[in-house]
Amino acid sequence: MNVSRLNFRLDAQAVGSRARAATFRTLHNEVRTPLFMPVGTQATVKAQLTRTLEEAGSQIILANTYHLLLRPGSEVFRRLGGIHKFMSWGRSVLTDSGGFQIFSLPHSRSMSEAGAVFQSYLDGKKILLSPELSIETQKVIGSDIMMALDHCIVSTADETAARHAMEITHRWAARSLAARGESSQAIFAIVQGALFQQLRRESVARLSEMAFDGFAIGGLAVGEGKTEREDVCEFTAGLLPNDKPRYLMGVGTPLDILEAVHHGVDMFDCIIPTQVAQRGAVFTSRGYLQMKRGVYKFSEEKLDAECNCPTCVRYSRAYLHHLAKTGETLGWQLLGKHNLHFYHQLMREIRESILARDQQPAQSRILLRVPLTGFQNPGWSAVAQIGKQVGELKRELQ
Amino acid sequence: MNVSRLNFRLDAQAVGSRARAATFRTLHNEVRTPLFMPVGTQATVKAQLTRTLEEAGSQIILANTYHLLLRPGSEVFRRLGGIHKFMSWGRSVLTDSGGFQIFSLPHSRSMSEAGAVFQSYLDGKKILLSPELSIETQKVIGSDIMMALDHCIVSTADETAARHAMEITHRWAARSLAARGESSQAIFAIVQGALFQQLRRESVARLSEMAFDGFAIGGLAVGEGKTEREDVCEFTAGLLPNDKPRYLMGVGTPLDILEAVHHGVDMFDCIIPTQVAQRGAVFTSRGYLQMKRGVYKFSEEKLDAECNCPTCVRYSRAYLHHLAKTGETLGWQLLGKHNLHFYHQLMREIRESILARDQQPAQSRILLRVPLTGFQNPGWSAVAQIGKQVGELKRELQ
Repeated sequence: MNVSRLNFRLDAQAVGSRARAATFRTLHNEVRTPLFMPVGTQATVKAQLTRTLEEAGSQIILANTYHLLLRPGSEVFRRLGGIHKFMSWGRSVLTDSGGFQIFSLPHSRSMSEAGAVFQSYLDGKKILLSPELSIETQKVIGSDIMMALDHCIVSTADETAARHAMEITHRWAARSLAARGESSQAIFAIVQGALFQQLRRESVARLSEMAFDGFAIGGLAVGEGKTEREDVCEFTAGLLPNDKPRYLMGVGTPLDILEAVHHGVDMFDCIIPTQVAQRGAVFTSRGYLQMKRGVYKFSEEKLDAECNCPTCVRYSRAYLHHLAKTGETLGWQLLGKHNLHFYHQLMREIRESILARDQQPAQSRILLRVPLTGFQNPGWSAVAQIGKQVGELKRELQ
Repeated sequence: MNVSRLNFRLDAQAVGSRARAATFRTLHNEVRTPLFMPVGTQATVKAQLTRTLEEAGSQIILANTYHLLLRPGSEVFRRLGGIHKFMSWGRSVLTDSGGFQIFSLPHSRSMSEAGAVFQSYLDGKKILLSPELSIETQKVIGSDIMMALDHCIVSTADETAARHAMEITHRWAARSLAARGESSQAIFAIVQGALFQQLRRESVARLSEMAFDGFAIGGLAVGEGKTEREDVCEFTAGLLPNDKPRYLMGVGTPLDILEAVHHGVDMFDCIIPTQVAQRGAVFTSRGYLQMKRGVYKFSEEKLDAECNCPTCVRYSRAYLHHLAKTGETLGWQLLGKHNLHFYHQLMREIRESILARDQQPAQSRILLRVPLTGFQNPGWSAVAQIGKQVGELKRELQ
């Protein structure tokens, strides 16, 4: 029996890969996976209009309980009727619980069984973020998907520390679920356990006993290497229940996402597309481009010949180069818009490939055009294949 | 005979005021005055899409020869076919000559009969901006209206210095006009003369002997008081030919503009609407508002009840307050969009009032809702009347 509030259903399961396509329904819209969620920490996706997000095909955006608790504060959401109305966004919102942000604070935090104590960067006031306060805040924010508060540590912690943090996370998960109560909002648990397979196994076992609507893989992208991350993702995703959404938090580049889809992950969020735009960089069907480079100074070409986003339709590389060089905020806006289109288009292509593969099992390969690239080096496009280790493919091609 | 390339024609002349409504035609569009030109120094109006400018009703935008000469450089415009295509803007562009920017440089400039020598802030190279180089650059940029290079000084300079600068300006104006040659681009001269009536009179007389397509009042908003500025504007505008556009450079607030329209000025540019937006401030039909103020924290109201711009249609004051407080670039974008709508709507109302007055001379007053406000204090709306000294009106109301 599917007890999820999200009415999750699998649409297709790839052959020769754990990749899958699914559909679920939040309080605001029907959602198709695999999907990418733009990050809107402060109830705004950096430099983008909500209209732009609608046009780009964003289905869910991410907001952050920690930041919104401090500013504008719960009372604003209570009086104004939630985040959707507040920021004029009619589709879904997922709120992170605040655990990761408090972990990331350089000073002024302490963890206990009760919760995480931190000092407000606005007025210096000490705040105890308990599982109950996190959920209470997320309820008032009115997100479609809430996250249970988790206890984050560096992923390279030793086993004792990792076990301790994991066990607190499990108790906080139970308290978060109880705090959710009869709310119609969905709630996800966050699997912890650092890089230890045994701990990840225990964490999945313990959390999947509880009535969560989905599961996130947490505690990654916080100190470990790329291979370790991919290994833990593969191992953990393989343990998670089939009938609930799986969410890999804070990941990643297009290839990271492709790798994780291959391991069975459904949902992703990352600041990369908007953050690199601020620095003048874009993803294209021909690879990763740094628009500040002098080679674009006279280029009349579209940013991406295969893209029909509003930026590509209207502006030349020469103009985008100029905006990036002069540090004009319009450049950030236009490049970010393109990057969000790129990410959403990538996810749509991945989904279509999985669906096509499901319907035509005789088809030998699923082809995906993915820029093979790091963030230091401009890369070039290649054909990636679900059903083959993407990591191997990268090694072959680099 | 109207020798202007702009085919300027007067549509209406107010009674009891020098205010006038006119129409002229540039290489790109028909333009109706009085009008406001958003400032797009670097070939981008800060934080705004060209689509937004189209929707707001911008007819001409201002770009800057000095900045564009340095970056992206003339060669980009030469190869890409001009600024309109470069920045995707199909209506008119007016380019300032660079005189004012060089005057504003804190160091590394020197003036001579040949032109203004300055050091590039990008590569330290010394550049002589002569009238010929300025016009050559403006030709390559492809602006609809070019400005002759002028020699700026502080407006409080003594008469000897003011006369010297004015006379250089006249010789540079003649050289600029000669450099324009057979180009179909229009060119305006800039009247100088600091605060001396006799010099302003001489400057208008000398420049209006030459075949310019319009005249700007320069050398203001550079050190003098508000009353002095208004007096010089009134005096100088009254001397300018009736059959050419009159442009007051760098002005101003809504009331400044109303005052100058009353004195017969047709065209304005100012960074105010986009600059104050970056600082969280807006013009509304009820006055000037600083959106960072705590009073807006819970406000579900529209920014301006009487505005139908995209910002007012979709966002509450509470959300705009939040964006301003968090310093999010989306706030700048949304507030700037509103301010540009406000300025353009103000100019449309002024024009309609002049036209209505012309058609119904029996009508006793022309009513304009204008926020009476400085930039320090929030102000409140009032009825201003063309045909009465706006300065007097302000004194009555303050």
